[in-house]
Amino acid sequence: MSDLHWKSAITKVEPNKLSVRGYKLDELMGEVSYAQMVYLLFKGEMPSKNVGKMIETILVSSVDHGTTPPSVLSALTVASTGAPLNASVAAGILSISKFHGGAIEDCMHILKQGMEIVKAENKSLQEAAVQIITEYRSIKKRLSGFGHRVHTNDPRTVKLFKIANELGVAGDYVKLAQAFVTALKETTGKDLPLNVDGAIAALLCEMDFDPILANAFFMIARVPGLVSHIYEEKTRQKPMRKIHPTDVEYDGPEGKSL
Amino acid sequence: MSDLHWKSAITKVEPNKLSVRGYKLDELMGEVSYAQMVYLLFKGEMPSKNVGKMIETILVSSVDHGTTPPSVLSALTVASTGAPLNASVAAGILSISKFHGGAIEDCMHILKQGMEIVKAENKSLQEAAVQIITEYRSIKKRLSGFGHRVHTNDPRTVKLFKIANELGVAGDYVKLAQAFVTALKETTGKDLPLNVDGAIAALLCEMDFDPILANAFFMIARVPGLVSHIYEEKTRQKPMRKIHPTDVEYDGPEGKSL
Amino acid sequence: MSDLHWKSAITKVEPNKLSVRGYKLDELMGEVSYAQMVYLLFKGEMPSKNVGKMIETILVSSVDHGTTPPSVLSALTVASTGAPLNASVAAGILSISKFHGGAIEDCMHILKQGMEIVKAENKSLQEAAVQIITEYRSIKKRLSGFGHRVHTNDPRTVKLFKIANELGVAGDYVKLAQAFVTALKETTGKDLPLNVDGAIAALLCEMDFDPILANAFFMIARVPGLVSHIYEEKTRQKPMRKIHPTDVEYDGPEGKSL
Amino acid sequence: MSDLHWKSAITKVEPNKLSVRGYKLDELMGEVSYAQMVYLLFKGEMPSKNVGKMIETILVSSVDHGTTPPSVLSALTVASTGAPLNASVAAGILSISKFHGGAIEDCMHILKQGMEIVKAENKSLQEAAVQIITEYRSIKKRLSGFGHRVHTNDPRTVKLFKIANELGVAGDYVKLAQAFVTALKETTGKDLPLNVDGAIAALLCEMDFDPILANAFFMIARVPGLVSHIYEEKTRQKPMRKIHPTDVEYDGPEGKSL
Repeated sequence: MSDLHWKSAITKVEPNKLSVRGYKLDELMGEVSYAQMVYLLFKGEMPSKNVGKMIETILVSSVDHGTTPPSVLSALTVASTGAPLNASVAAGILSISKFHGGAIEDCMHILKQGMEIVKAENKSLQEAAVQIITEYRSIKKRLSGFGHRVHTNDPRTVKLFKIANELGVAGDYVKLAQAFVTALKETTGKDLPLNVDGAIAALLCEMDFDPILANAFFMIARVPGLVSHIYEEKTRQKPMRKIHPTDVEYDGPEGKSL
Repeated sequence: MSDLHWKSAITKVEPNKLSVRGYKLDELMGEVSYAQMVYLLFKGEMPSKNVGKMIETILVSSVDHGTTPPSVLSALTVASTGAPLNASVAAGILSISKFHGGAIEDCMHILKQGMEIVKAENKSLQEAAVQIITEYRSIKKRLSGFGHRVHTNDPRTVKLFKIANELGVAGDYVKLAQAFVTALKETTGKDLPLNVDGAIAALLCEMDFDPILANAFFMIARVPGLVSHIYEEKTRQKPMRKIHPTDVEYDGPEGKSL
Repeated sequence: MSDLHWKSAITKVEPNKLSVRGYKLDELMGEVSYAQMVYLLFKGEMPSKNVGKMIETILVSSVDHGTTPPSVLSALTVASTGAPLNASVAAGILSISKFHGGAIEDCMHILKQGMEIVKAENKSLQEAAVQIITEYRSIKKRLSGFGHRVHTNDPRTVKLFKIANELGVAGDYVKLAQAFVTALKETTGKDLPLNVDGAIAALLCEMDFDPILANAFFMIARVPGLVSHIYEEKTRQKPMRKIHPTDVEYDGPEGKSL
Repeated sequence: MSDLHWKSAITKVEPNKLSVRGYKLDELMGEVSYAQMVYLLFKGEMPSKNVGKMIETILVSSVDHGTTPPSVLSALTVASTGAPLNASVAAGILSISKFHGGAIEDCMHILKQGMEIVKAENKSLQEAAVQIITEYRSIKKRLSGFGHRVHTNDPRTVKLFKIANELGVAGDYVKLAQAFVTALKETTGKDLPLNVDGAIAALLCEMDFDPILANAFFMIARVPGLVSHIYEEKTRQKPMRKIHPTDVEYDGPEGKSL
């Protein structure tokens, strides 16, 4: 034992035995989902099947959003220079930052602040929402999680909340997020629907995740998407092409259903 | 349409409508697993539930291997300087390279070469294995996918193949991988068991993935593990500490079961 | 001209003609130093030879600090996995963050705050230093740029200020930095000498650089150092070795002089 | 001393004493150039002033090439998401890969192969060039270092060789590079001038650098350029803008001279 001895509570590695958070890994294989493993790794406890299902739905909702997000464009730019897959993915990950993905964490802080007001000041969800909106407007700060540059009624948000209700995950944070939409309409006169970042923020609050892990869910969801774009770049395009950020046409299959 | 117009066949984004590989994303949410989405994104087709389950088991098997892999150590080193989560994850991803994770792709090439010999030269799996081993020994090249510095009988390999059999995914590539183990024993006198990289390589061959995507499965699996280590570093350790690569003790829970 | 038309004021590229900030690049080659180019790129004006010499001395002072900084350890960890040179350098760059290199920017803010106090409140440099030290102590915040874990009298600081005086670059910011050392001794009773980060901070203030560029000087200085360590790793060490963060011995030449 | 004890021959760090390759760092400050430090770090010996001047000219020649290189575009894309300076630089570095910057290393290998032929087969530079060109044409492989998409007579190449002659650095490798241009004209009928990558390759061969360090010179040169573009992005553009890869106009100063 050296003077640099340290401790970790995540995975125990012994010859022919691997345990994650106290569970033998081979016993988990085939029994629990990848989404449950994410929860187990982050929180140290095995979630219920329903909570696992909620996380899985969040991940599925965010696997890809086409070619225009900066994470895809930085990944493709690097891939186009002949860099290996992992370096291209890393460049994509470096784009998942304050203005791209960061809204989930920002919105979690807003919702947690709202819930604090509800509890500490004995106010309604609606009153708490109005109070925060007023505060943000007075300092001209944008409320993360509301409004979208493409979608006015994001189908992912609708479905996330529908499933959250079915799974018993939806609670006061989901109600608070919806109270914000009503309060925004009243205060600003504008329809600023909850976007997918806001919906995920509410659900991560329901499952009591630390806001600094918010971006992790977005990264985990997007890695397969990034890989598929990098693979398409490497197999379909010429190296060093000039990548236009918007003049791109979808030419894949249409209208498939399960 | 500019002269830089280009095409992509992955995701179609329209106002209030998002489709991945032709499937409406909100219809997939709650119905298919994250693992199925990985397959859909990479191959353009929705896999069966069983194939999805196989991929999920592969991902679960590889979420973490403790603190010693270089991907964890580079991620922790960056995290320790106060860098944000995504930059720390990116540094981990940059370590998933030739000698760390790369064995899956190398082993896929070996198995595909073996299957070529079987088909083209009408040989048995065992004969093909011997031929490749002999070739590798003559140029003193190591066979990726066999042997492990910690595990002599990796419980993950055993479980992966058990589940592959149950799901009907196991076929000639799994048999070929096992033929290699027998042939290695005969040729070298050593027990060089198939390691988890080799097992995953065989299963990715069974599901007909392009070997250049091999590393992607390892990256996707490991991102949650990397995040949990980075989170532990940021919440449990002092910034700029000296990170010993091996003198680390597991102090988490033990002996849990589902 | 598309609706995404944008403008940049750095480099004009025409066939057989390249101009940086208005100067033909081939006319600069052989006439100005790399350090002058750094200034030209960052500020848009060609600096005097003396200012160029000051920047060059700063860069030379910071090219390397042995194997223990996290930027070297993350770069070596990535290099050890067989990753290419540029990915290894990128991992090093990702470590040049808040607690590693970041002190230069922090100290620039402190010195600029001090100079504000001097000007706005008509105080002496010493009084301004005491005021800031008192403020930092009251909120238990550490003053970046003072004290060093290895060096009590950093030879680089001494030489930087000697040269700054010779070149006519040293002015009120250098005096203010020195006033902080005296004020720290008086206030805390401790000898907390200006470290190399603090000295560079004072000099960058003298040359009126934006503090958000502070880290750039450290990165530019360190890239050659990182490359030399990565090259040593790739040519002298085995892949995937366990890299001890401190148990390393210098075995190069000693006692050379110009 | 632990069992992970290792050795490094680059920098010795002692309290109040720092030596690089055996030279006290504070004695080098003010006496040697940054470019000489690059040579010292990479090769372990202090170069002559002339060799330092040659490296400095190479670095100055390559500091920037406008907004279109992928290293700039990936850095800007990441910067635009609100990522910090170092993460943006890292994304730029990840683009300095096979097809962007990589030509220097490729061309060094070609020139070294040519010189081998000259020595081993007692051929003229011209004959060696023809032999390699013929070999490359037979396998339809492109010769790196010759031809440029923008410049037919790159002013940087002309100036690099002029200075190399003045400094006494130019020798047989420069002649060989020029022999290739003549041989290409004869063999293909096309004017394929030596580009700046090819010129740098010839000069790095003259100074006997290991080809795997070729990319390092390009990275070191470009970091200040990348920083200036990232700084412009952060101070002049809105976050998350769509970055057009070519529709960009230079609006800086013109016609300046020293």
